[in-house]
Amino acid sequence: MGLQASSLRADADAIIRAAISDAMPDTAVLRALSEIHLGNRVWLVAVGKAAWPMAAAAQQVLGDRLMGGAVITKYEHSRGEIPRVEIYEAGHPVPDENSFRATERVLELVHSLGEADEVVFLLSGGGSALFEAPLVPGEELQDVTRQMLSCGADIRQINTIRKRLSGVKGGRFAQICAPAKVHAIILSDVLGDAVDAIASGPACPDPETAQTARDIVERYRLRLSDRARALMDEETPKALDNVETRIIGSVRQLCKSAETTARSLGYTPVMLTADLCCTARDAGSFLASIARSHVDSNESLAFIAGGETVVRITGSGLGGRNQELALAAAAGIDGLKDVCVFSVGSDGTDGPTDAAGGYADGDTRQRLMQQGIRIEAVLEENDSYHALKACGGLIVTGATGTNVNDLSVALIKRAKA
Amino acid sequence: MGLQASSLRADADAIIRAAISDAMPDTAVLRALSEIHLGNRVWLVAVGKAAWPMAAAAQQVLGDRLMGGAVITKYEHSRGEIPRVEIYEAGHPVPDENSFRATERVLELVHSLGEADEVVFLLSGGGSALFEAPLVPGEELQDVTRQMLSCGADIRQINTIRKRLSGVKGGRFAQICAPAKVHAIILSDVLGDAVDAIASGPACPDPETAQTARDIVERYRLRLSDRARALMDEETPKALDNVETRIIGSVRQLCKSAETTARSLGYTPVMLTADLCCTARDAGSFLASIARSHVDSNESLAFIAGGETVVRITGSGLGGRNQELALAAAAGIDGLKDVCVFSVGSDGTDGPTDAAGGYADGDTRQRLMQQGIRIEAVLEENDSYHALKACGGLIVTGATGTNVNDLSVALIKRAKA
Repeated sequence: MGLQASSLRADADAIIRAAISDAMPDTAVLRALSEIHLGNRVWLVAVGKAAWPMAAAAQQVLGDRLMGGAVITKYEHSRGEIPRVEIYEAGHPVPDENSFRATERVLELVHSLGEADEVVFLLSGGGSALFEAPLVPGEELQDVTRQMLSCGADIRQINTIRKRLSGVKGGRFAQICAPAKVHAIILSDVLGDAVDAIASGPACPDPETAQTARDIVERYRLRLSDRARALMDEETPKALDNVETRIIGSVRQLCKSAETTARSLGYTPVMLTADLCCTARDAGSFLASIARSHVDSNESLAFIAGGETVVRITGSGLGGRNQELALAAAAGIDGLKDVCVFSVGSDGTDGPTDAAGGYADGDTRQRLMQQGIRIEAVLEENDSYHALKACGGLIVTGATGTNVNDLSVALIKRAKA
Repeated sequence: MGLQASSLRADADAIIRAAISDAMPDTAVLRALSEIHLGNRVWLVAVGKAAWPMAAAAQQVLGDRLMGGAVITKYEHSRGEIPRVEIYEAGHPVPDENSFRATERVLELVHSLGEADEVVFLLSGGGSALFEAPLVPGEELQDVTRQMLSCGADIRQINTIRKRLSGVKGGRFAQICAPAKVHAIILSDVLGDAVDAIASGPACPDPETAQTARDIVERYRLRLSDRARALMDEETPKALDNVETRIIGSVRQLCKSAETTARSLGYTPVMLTADLCCTARDAGSFLASIARSHVDSNESLAFIAGGETVVRITGSGLGGRNQELALAAAAGIDGLKDVCVFSVGSDGTDGPTDAAGGYADGDTRQRLMQQGIRIEAVLEENDSYHALKACGGLIVTGATGTNVNDLSVALIKRAKA
């Protein structure tokens, strides 16, 4: 006998709600700080689009131990005062004078710290533009970037050069904080969590050497000022013994949270990947085929995938990658009892729609057919939004305030034996 | 420290070898018969493209208990005499007079069996054309099929009608065998193992009723003779208490075999699906993303998928779906230590090539780049064969004599702690 369909949807919603809540910048910061033993002289530096809520959460925990600090966030992203913390807004995605001035102020705060001091460094997306102290004039920095882009250099090569032209990137910020200890807490929206790539790693040793930088200059025949050329030879930190780094709220944590909630709801979780990157349609088909092969299971199962799929554009409809994934899966789980596939963007916005993602179960296809809607045609038109809307399959959360990629799950719910 | 790459490839080869061997018609029949308790009066009816090796294996086990029987296989598919068994070759995919005559002979053999008799019924692909006793003239049978195809009837509807026009399909063969017990052993190359669909289910109750048949006739305004029209009303068996059915050598068993071998090699197997049907490229990407997310595992893992992917044609190169899957995965596991993804067709033939499939590990991309071969370009050209050949990634088995779809596996090998 089938369980209530509504119970399956309720499970999906509970998993989504908890995963997004755990990935919220403030929640994630509180969890991270609860695991760190901090002394009585703590400085706070928060940089990025989520810097304000992260700093506000940290301030609440730190109370009197907070000596001072600064937030540098995007224009219109601060939400008021935070006790003992200076608030700066600056340019993103292109750094501006306010970025440089605010960064300069942060360096003043930390450059003379002692061994008893500690820095809580809260980094989120957008940090690369917001946190910058160029060692050459801003115009040259932009010119070098343009040169490299025009001759086909990849992002890794561009970062190798830019780290050397920056007073804070490539581990240099942490170096300036020394001997104070730096607790880097990074809210990551970068797949794979390459720490040195996030905001060009202000508190992360630079894996690339001066030799590599010179090779890149040579290879692309970059035109550099004498100052910039000299900076290529100045080695970036290769080890930082005053830094401890934590990744919070990454897609991996999004999956872990789903795992925990699924388990509490009676599912045996199976973690597939935190690094999904294929097309949305085929990811849906693959998840559906996994569900199909496990319908005879005696236990409830939750197959969990995180990442960011891509939509292959073949039509001009309305939708997003998560909605398309769910709708593609609907075709593959058609007729199955107590099976669903859902996919949701943690930022609450899937494509140019007001939905966060989509939900499909074994009845979805039938329900659409009754309205004369064929899934194959909808997918061809990339119009998943309207189809899911027609069958109650939209997941709507509103903008969440975090962004750690997407969560895609197949649930198979079985009554307890 | 990395393990020997050769050891990873050896594991892959061992898994492939065992899976295909277990799926061979003769091996599969021997295994199935070892699990069945048979009496002393056994009749053998083997139908399909693999009927000969299946019957030959059964004869060896049955020895003196074999009372008689018949093989009906495709032209040039019998390989000599089998003691006590009559051998017939007939038309496939279109049934011919030899199909009808041989089927008539089989019905003579089984129509007067008693309670002490048993029939071992070995069914493999192609059985639908080879095993047929039409209740209307062959020309009308063909005409009805043509009518239905031309007005867009689906395969399920066509089978519903054809079962009623046949003296052996839709469970009628098993009905004729009664009261003798029928042990149906089915070598399946149909995804999902829908037993009533394989050769239109000679030993399987027909799920469709006379009413459904009449509705189809009505809906498509089929022109039928009076005889055919009367047959629509004759109900097919809805239950068969003298039949026991075993599916052997299905893609599900291919996966199970891979699971067993992987476990014996020290891997913890994770069964993903026996029903894979998305594009080869994205299946490769998905498997690679699973591997990537588990590289930090302390135990060796084998993620197993079976099914049949599809190739999206974008170029004019040489390759097959398994080779394309492996090559697509190579991009996703680039640089990972002791990780591989392989995919192989159980028939030993992948696309129009002499390879059965492809193998890729963390070095594959690098090895190809050293030869100036870019994976993305190769995939765009659908030219996986030449790329895999250039890096030693082809899996070559030769034609295997079985066909139970494909096996795709991601291995993550870790030294014992």
